[in-house]
Amino acid sequence: MTKPNINTNMMHLGNVRSVIRETFEYGNKRAKEIGRENVFDFSLGNPSVPVPNEVHNTMLNLLQKGDPVKLHGYTSAQGAELTREKIAQNINARFNAGVDKNDIYMTCGAAASLTISINALACNDDEFIAIAPFFPEYRVFIEAAGAKLVVVEADTQKFQIDFEKLKSAISTKTKAVIINSPNNPTGVVFSEDTIKTLCSILKEESEKRGEPIYLISDEPYRELVYDDNTVVPYLTNYYDNTLVCYSYSKSLSLPGERIGYIVVCNKMEHNKDIYAAVCGAGRALGFVCAPSMMQQVVIESLGNTSDLSVYKTNRDLLYKSLTEYGYECVYPDGAFYLFVKSLEEDAGAFCEKAKEFDLLLVPSDSFGCKGYIRIAYCVTTEMIKRSLPAFKKLAECYKK
Amino acid sequence: MTKPNINTNMMHLGNVRSVIRETFEYGNKRAKEIGRENVFDFSLGNPSVPVPNEVHNTMLNLLQKGDPVKLHGYTSAQGAELTREKIAQNINARFNAGVDKNDIYMTCGAAASLTISINALACNDDEFIAIAPFFPEYRVFIEAAGAKLVVVEADTQKFQIDFEKLKSAISTKTKAVIINSPNNPTGVVFSEDTIKTLCSILKEESEKRGEPIYLISDEPYRELVYDDNTVVPYLTNYYDNTLVCYSYSKSLSLPGERIGYIVVCNKMEHNKDIYAAVCGAGRALGFVCAPSMMQQVVIESLGNTSDLSVYKTNRDLLYKSLTEYGYECVYPDGAFYLFVKSLEEDAGAFCEKAKEFDLLLVPSDSFGCKGYIRIAYCVTTEMIKRSLPAFKKLAECYKK
Repeated sequence: MTKPNINTNMMHLGNVRSVIRETFEYGNKRAKEIGRENVFDFSLGNPSVPVPNEVHNTMLNLLQKGDPVKLHGYTSAQGAELTREKIAQNINARFNAGVDKNDIYMTCGAAASLTISINALACNDDEFIAIAPFFPEYRVFIEAAGAKLVVVEADTQKFQIDFEKLKSAISTKTKAVIINSPNNPTGVVFSEDTIKTLCSILKEESEKRGEPIYLISDEPYRELVYDDNTVVPYLTNYYDNTLVCYSYSKSLSLPGERIGYIVVCNKMEHNKDIYAAVCGAGRALGFVCAPSMMQQVVIESLGNTSDLSVYKTNRDLLYKSLTEYGYECVYPDGAFYLFVKSLEEDAGAFCEKAKEFDLLLVPSDSFGCKGYIRIAYCVTTEMIKRSLPAFKKLAECYKK
Repeated sequence: MTKPNINTNMMHLGNVRSVIRETFEYGNKRAKEIGRENVFDFSLGNPSVPVPNEVHNTMLNLLQKGDPVKLHGYTSAQGAELTREKIAQNINARFNAGVDKNDIYMTCGAAASLTISINALACNDDEFIAIAPFFPEYRVFIEAAGAKLVVVEADTQKFQIDFEKLKSAISTKTKAVIINSPNNPTGVVFSEDTIKTLCSILKEESEKRGEPIYLISDEPYRELVYDDNTVVPYLTNYYDNTLVCYSYSKSLSLPGERIGYIVVCNKMEHNKDIYAAVCGAGRALGFVCAPSMMQQVVIESLGNTSDLSVYKTNRDLLYKSLTEYGYECVYPDGAFYLFVKSLEEDAGAFCEKAKEFDLLLVPSDSFGCKGYIRIAYCVTTEMIKRSLPAFKKLAECYKK
């Protein structure tokens, strides 16, 4: 039998399940064997709290009172004007960022925000830099756009950025740096100092080359921070050549509805051309417009978030308990992940060991940083409480 | 000022408005000057009838009774299992096509169905064939995937397929042929004879090369046919190497909600690999899953369509009137377009002339077939009645 004459890269991407998805499927199988309540599945970053009431009521209201032809009709490719206007107002009220409605392009969620931004910028042989640990799909998106991923090794002390390593990663081919704060998988928020140093390096390197290095800020977790004094800097205020990629998936618990946006900072040179390239990339990839009803829902939801307090409760409980049991873990200010040092060198083997206690964890290898596991704590607090004895026993296996 | 160092193809795509969109924007401007009721805008293929009541009620019901975390949560990348199962059952009940739920991949609408299918198949230098006249975005999607569009000139007698021209368009580089029936922009349905001849040529050419030529059937207008005896053949019943690209945009009047699917015919060789490539392409382009609530809505909507009777009324009225006034037009069995011969050689100039009567028509050039205009009759019948004197006067301008 001959091999299929199709795009084998795409075939490979479709055949290789992500380790996250595989762990999740194992959990479903295991739940059938021993009962859902006995499986402690921390694999998936799927919000566990419902949409805010206001958002729910807005949907009902739009359906009951809106004109269905308009409500479900095409919007312009960049998104409904009123939606973009209200989002710009909201961003400016919170961050004093000077965003205009015409800097905003509505997307089908964070993944689309990223693929569209990357395809808008990428020429052949371009390099995109990611700071480890990073969301594994960055590699997929960058390589599909014909560009190359360059990884900056993790700062395993604080999970900020190792700037010496960043500097040596930058080359004449660097098109952009992608950052993600609050971070998946560490939960860490980049400090203002980190952002300032990052931006000054990018400015210096851009000047040296006479061409900008762009900064892509992937921030679906922006609103998921748990301490009042945690500041998530708004990147366009620090660096002109910034594209902000946002999604409502986590803040409004709408991950399946695919709604988000891109902000092309209007202070960058050629910003109209770059916005046009974003529009062009959206068109070429097959995104006709972002889902129309959700574009209306967003208008009424600005300033709202789902009730995120359970995530804080979960973080506090897990962090306190795991460190008590002897696990090492960087303190996470946001997102809904803990990034815990594996108790043996091979994080994959450690996750296999954890399965013996029906703890489903994700090894860190695909995040570009070996020797850790990711715990997604967007689950019920009850499940976490039930899981604690298992975490304790797992730690005891490694005590001599 | 230097040029921006970004993807200039994407920039160009974003800067060049389609002639359809430009005409539509002109219409909005003109409506402000002389009143909406005096502008006869036939430019956009945006459904003018609301979603079926069943679909509307299903949405309300899901919101009122569904678990919001599940309803708005991620589905698997290929789509919710029950949705795929029900769609397969519905296809099989209608066309006896032997489709399995695992042959179906849910998408964000027809454009996504096409870009995903094309990216799954395309290797560098591959050629994709389209039959003129064709939807202009085919060129954008094919070229963005690194492949080349090859156009088969139109059969201007019946707007079926000129098979001699098709044969000479096929080369060793041909990866796939894209067809669209009922057709945008002609409204013509390919007859069963056309389909049979097409498929026998593709089989013969595939055997000659020892490698399949795929058939991509783009069919968002499948349910929009107006005479009971009009048959739209289901392509997997005629040709194994078929991918069906479907969208609910037109049949359920949900164009802004971005919901559709791909069927990878399970009779083709390597069908599992090709399905995997579809999954991989969806992943690489940034489509995480199709909008989740709409996936549920589809389950309850199978077999339903919006009330399409107004489109038939419109077609009958326009076809009868225009041919009476002396226009030449192929009789359209479906979709919501009339493809009318321009009364002067340059269809663009003819459309400019039509604007003097506030008739907004789209010249056929970008559809790969010069000398015609497209009339999108997904408008109110009242508007068509009001527009008839203008069409009459326009024709009279060209009578000597």
